[in-house]
Amino acid sequence: MAFVVEKFGGTSVAGPDRIRVVADHVARRRSRGDETVLVVSAMGSETDELLRMASDVAADPPGREVDMLITGGERKACALMAMALSDLGAPAESFTGSQAGFRTDSSHTGAKITQITPGRIIDALARGMVPVVGGSQGVSGDGDVTFFGRGGSDTTAVALAHVLDADYCEIYTDVPGVFSADPRIVAEARRMETISFDELLEMTASGCPKPAMRAVELARTYGVELHVRSAFSWMPGTTVTGEEAMEHAIISAVTHDASEAKMTVSGVADRPGVAGRLFRTLADTDVNVDVIVQNVSSRGVTDISFTVPRSQLDTARTAAQGLIGELEADDVSADDGIARVSLIGAGMQTNPGVAARMFETLASAGINIEMISTSAIRISCVIRAGDMERAVSTLHESFELDKDPADRASVY
Amino acid sequence: MAFVVEKFGGTSVAGPDRIRVVADHVARRRSRGDETVLVVSAMGSETDELLRMASDVAADPPGREVDMLITGGERKACALMAMALSDLGAPAESFTGSQAGFRTDSSHTGAKITQITPGRIIDALARGMVPVVGGSQGVSGDGDVTFFGRGGSDTTAVALAHVLDADYCEIYTDVPGVFSADPRIVAEARRMETISFDELLEMTASGCPKPAMRAVELARTYGVELHVRSAFSWMPGTTVTGEEAMEHAIISAVTHDASEAKMTVSGVADRPGVAGRLFRTLADTDVNVDVIVQNVSSRGVTDISFTVPRSQLDTARTAAQGLIGELEADDVSADDGIARVSLIGAGMQTNPGVAARMFETLASAGINIEMISTSAIRISCVIRAGDMERAVSTLHESFELDKDPADRASVY
Repeated sequence: MAFVVEKFGGTSVAGPDRIRVVADHVARRRSRGDETVLVVSAMGSETDELLRMASDVAADPPGREVDMLITGGERKACALMAMALSDLGAPAESFTGSQAGFRTDSSHTGAKITQITPGRIIDALARGMVPVVGGSQGVSGDGDVTFFGRGGSDTTAVALAHVLDADYCEIYTDVPGVFSADPRIVAEARRMETISFDELLEMTASGCPKPAMRAVELARTYGVELHVRSAFSWMPGTTVTGEEAMEHAIISAVTHDASEAKMTVSGVADRPGVAGRLFRTLADTDVNVDVIVQNVSSRGVTDISFTVPRSQLDTARTAAQGLIGELEADDVSADDGIARVSLIGAGMQTNPGVAARMFETLASAGINIEMISTSAIRISCVIRAGDMERAVSTLHESFELDKDPADRASVY
Repeated sequence: MAFVVEKFGGTSVAGPDRIRVVADHVARRRSRGDETVLVVSAMGSETDELLRMASDVAADPPGREVDMLITGGERKACALMAMALSDLGAPAESFTGSQAGFRTDSSHTGAKITQITPGRIIDALARGMVPVVGGSQGVSGDGDVTFFGRGGSDTTAVALAHVLDADYCEIYTDVPGVFSADPRIVAEARRMETISFDELLEMTASGCPKPAMRAVELARTYGVELHVRSAFSWMPGTTVTGEEAMEHAIISAVTHDASEAKMTVSGVADRPGVAGRLFRTLADTDVNVDVIVQNVSSRGVTDISFTVPRSQLDTARTAAQGLIGELEADDVSADDGIARVSLIGAGMQTNPGVAARMFETLASAGINIEMISTSAIRISCVIRAGDMERAVSTLHESFELDKDPADRASVY
């Protein structure tokens, strides 16, 4: 008997049939004695459809109205889920974010939770109801409806699991767990039984799409155990915890990200304050800079390269070009033909050979490395986009990620 | 400069293009100095689509969840309308029923307003915003979302016009006003410039579909002047007031209703309490009985006939058959091949010839009258369904309803 918060993403509840399937799972689980709170996302592509309607009626719709509009998607899904559960003998009640007690700031389409008062959820549980909560939404101090942003339902689920003191939080998605590489690229990709919060954070930051990074950060902060599972197979998925695994792999996974572009500001003066001025300017225009590399200085000047989301390339270029005079730079160039491959693994901290082997592996495959960045548990290489899939496959094979961790090389 | 509550029905806001058209009208009006509060229904057939999804996931969905689901339709429409208005230079804010201050009882999918505290609407107006309110919805004392039922957006609009002390309330629909007969049946049907609340109530009760009866009752109670107009033609429509028109027609309109069936309980004992027992039983099964006719008694027994909505015929028949023994009745029979035609007119109270002329007109057209019922301003005849359209046309012509009231006969 466990007390679990279960979060179902858009593909898990894409239509009435899927909603019935999920409700059946929850009803069976309840009859076996588990107690559950559900969090649901909007059905299928509903959020996209609502945003398309918004762009049909207004060029630049106000954030307040966008949030009112799109939170309706989760609300619809949770009402239908509550109906399906009741129909299957598991009495249920739906709750909007506001009704579930999610108070937020007023940052529309990116609201932050300020307080959770889940009195109605606790009351519903006490009455034997399955509470079904609309994900990614709350209410501001002004009484306006707020949306947490894409992937915000994961945040709702983790936050509820924390304040309700649930045993763990299950994130149901359309893949059966976290993999050692994208199974669409590497057929031998291995589902991991466990992974640490830090590794999962590095993975989501470097291309692994699920679960949402903000939710993983929240789970790590509050020590909420996460289970990443599939609502299509119902197999055990990947457990994400803060605890050190008994048998920890040196490398857990290889990830990739083809959504970024590279910018280079070349020939800038190599003096204090230059980088600060550049990245403050980019931050002020809301550009998300990721990998940053500054080459060694020669002739008193240097090149600064960095990656930005491809969708923000024009904004970033305009901002950087405006600084050419001030920074005494030669040029600003952009390159949208890049991709990033990353190795993730908490074990690499004590294995200095990992980076060398990664570079050797790519080199032996004839893949040129354009930029490198590292963290304690991640090494990323920026390469040509056309080399990406081959790089992922080669690295996966070289580091034996298809094997059980116990059967792999113990040092590189 | 007027202060007006404008209600837009589902066809008026059926898609993004329609929403832009309505927003354009409101923005122009605002720039001319009028102050407006908008109430919007769900877009097009959205309510039907949501109910179909509900029936896809559950055989008998709980009312609480149905209300949570379908009120999302109005909410979506009002967020899109607020976006469109803002885009056209008329800053706007959407409000759910709850945010607009509509408190209700807990009767789901048929909630009654208990209190309105429109503080946020007044505040939005003071800030120069156009408030856009989701129709037909509120919040119960338990904090649950409630739905007023079909046509409830008219009720929202009239109630807001009352508590905000608006100059009048405009109900925008897909027809340009109230007509002397259904223009689809009678090509010469005449749009009425004015009509009294009582006449409009009799019309809606006897087949005229718009506006919703409950809203008209509310408007009459609080003396809220209604304008029934079209959001397609934007022409002046029909004004509904409690004041006596300067030049009042004897007959205003002929209406028809083909949605009912006739039931007859024959050979019942002609003694006190029999009718009471029958109609109490029907009321207890929530059957809406309309026209009731009891034939004169012969041999100490009588026949009681009445009409019920065709959709409730089975329920009504079962209930009545259960009373055959107790009422010493011979038989219960049902007939779903009937229709009702009605003449409506406040002037008929002082014109005793109206009924006679109606019966003569139908007789000369070879149409048999099966039941008759009257009120102070209405005469209804139940006839064969196949005769309905001919009856409406003939009556419209006979009472000269295509002519201006001043040009008609002044007595019958």
